[in-house]
Amino acid sequence: MPSLPPDQPGIIRDETGAQTLLGYVVDFTARDGTAKCILDIGPQHGNRHGSLHGGIISCMLDNAMGFAASLTGDDAGDTRFMTISMNTQFMAPAREGRVTATGVISGGGRNLLFAEGSIHDDAGAAIATATGVYKRIKETRS
Amino acid sequence: MPSLPPDQPGIIRDETGAQTLLGYVVDFTARDGTAKCILDIGPQHGNRHGSLHGGIISCMLDNAMGFAASLTGDDAGDTRFMTISMNTQFMAPAREGRVTATGVISGGGRNLLFAEGSIHDDAGAAIATATGVYKRIKETRS
Amino acid sequence: MPSLPPDQPGIIRDETGAQTLLGYVVDFTARDGTAKCILDIGPQHGNRHGSLHGGIISCMLDNAMGFAASLTGDDAGDTRFMTISMNTQFMAPAREGRVTATGVISGGGRNLLFAEGSIHDDAGAAIATATGVYKRIKETRS
Amino acid sequence: MPSLPPDQPGIIRDETGAQTLLGYVVDFTARDGTAKCILDIGPQHGNRHGSLHGGIISCMLDNAMGFAASLTGDDAGDTRFMTISMNTQFMAPAREGRVTATGVISGGGRNLLFAEGSIHDDAGAAIATATGVYKRIKETRS
Repeated sequence: MPSLPPDQPGIIRDETGAQTLLGYVVDFTARDGTAKCILDIGPQHGNRHGSLHGGIISCMLDNAMGFAASLTGDDAGDTRFMTISMNTQFMAPAREGRVTATGVISGGGRNLLFAEGSIHDDAGAAIATATGVYKRIKETRS
Repeated sequence: MPSLPPDQPGIIRDETGAQTLLGYVVDFTARDGTAKCILDIGPQHGNRHGSLHGGIISCMLDNAMGFAASLTGDDAGDTRFMTISMNTQFMAPAREGRVTATGVISGGGRNLLFAEGSIHDDAGAAIATATGVYKRIKETRS
Repeated sequence: MPSLPPDQPGIIRDETGAQTLLGYVVDFTARDGTAKCILDIGPQHGNRHGSLHGGIISCMLDNAMGFAASLTGDDAGDTRFMTISMNTQFMAPAREGRVTATGVISGGGRNLLFAEGSIHDDAGAAIATATGVYKRIKETRS
Repeated sequence: MPSLPPDQPGIIRDETGAQTLLGYVVDFTARDGTAKCILDIGPQHGNRHGSLHGGIISCMLDNAMGFAASLTGDDAGDTRFMTISMNTQFMAPAREGRVTATGVISGGGRNLLFAEGSIHDDAGAAIATATGVYKRIKETRS
């Protein structure tokens, strides 16, 4: 498995409690409006079937889409958006290795955005896809 | 905050890696076909807004609905189902204390089930609601 | 089949082109915040399987939820909301007779609302359930 | 507005009551696994806002995705699938002219399929996107 991307602008580690707990890396170095969440699967991420837990899949898709929303506000992704609704389709299990969730904005205005996301394994197989609605929060990030 | 339910039939702790990592308790002691996931919120569950991460909310809703599906197969909830699709509506943030997700089967047949879930805080406020489609897996649990 | 509700405050017929085309009646005479859409199934509503077309089911659920949203703005349901997203679970076919979709607001604020809906046949069987996100439109109804 | 596609293999008109009532044409002449539903908007399709009714948008997306599912079974699209669940994101209103919904299969197996759909206006603007889960029905079409 290749090493995770090194620290640099556009890479976020350990920003929140949940991110540290789950251990994924946020990557928006592509600078094309997309955001990625990258996770190396370990036994702590497993479900009853011995594969990556669907809740963690949803978590990564939500993060990738939410970061794509934040990138519409500023290049550093500091503009805050909250998730209004989210729909996930679980297409195949992911058992080991690395998974990468990618989010992109598909429509909307300034305050209410539509996003799409997908998560793939190392071999490029689609694990799940998602759509979501995100709303801009007025307060600024401290 | 009241103590979590003690070990007994219908209480599941640490069954999977994800459950141990996130720290929730599964409770189907009600014996009415519903299943609950109970979590005491800690800083490790936080998002960028200082409230419970949406992905963890989805995770608990998915588990509660999935266990309700399993309970249609046997009283111990050992029958395995996988999540096909899931939709979550995020209604209010949960900042601290305990949250309880409850899942119930709303329709379907033997192999494909429709479920509904909701998650509330200690004060009874609705944090999120969800619907999901669950499919029975043929292999038995070892 | 009982007759449809007679004209009175809280009953809306033929308000829009789509309503006239499909032939359903909007009923918010309950005055409890819920709104209903009532349809007597005819051959013009059928799908490939000889049952009520899923798109028409979605249409009625959307209308019932959207009217419930409008009723948060004024008692006559004139306040306009648009559908942002909607999720439907199709639980059983409806072949003949009358179906009634009921919508209710489950959360949200003044401008962005969460709604739930369900549609049942004459015998009380659940045909489908739905959730949706609705947004208030600023312009007033002419 | 260009004329609708002429009768030929891969074009379906008036197959069901709902199709005749709404007036759309099914087009799977592309022979690439996608299916389209084409509608010329008239006043009979309008909602309270003077634009294409969201329920009709859902109807066309559901049809396009369902036909794409049917095309996995046979080249004539006769294999029957039923909609299990469907999620729609409404991105922009469509006021006049022609709209085209396109459905494609994104994953799944033989009996349970995941589909994606989008509907665009004549100018190529996205009106809505959708995802759905479709299940093969055992009986054959008469």
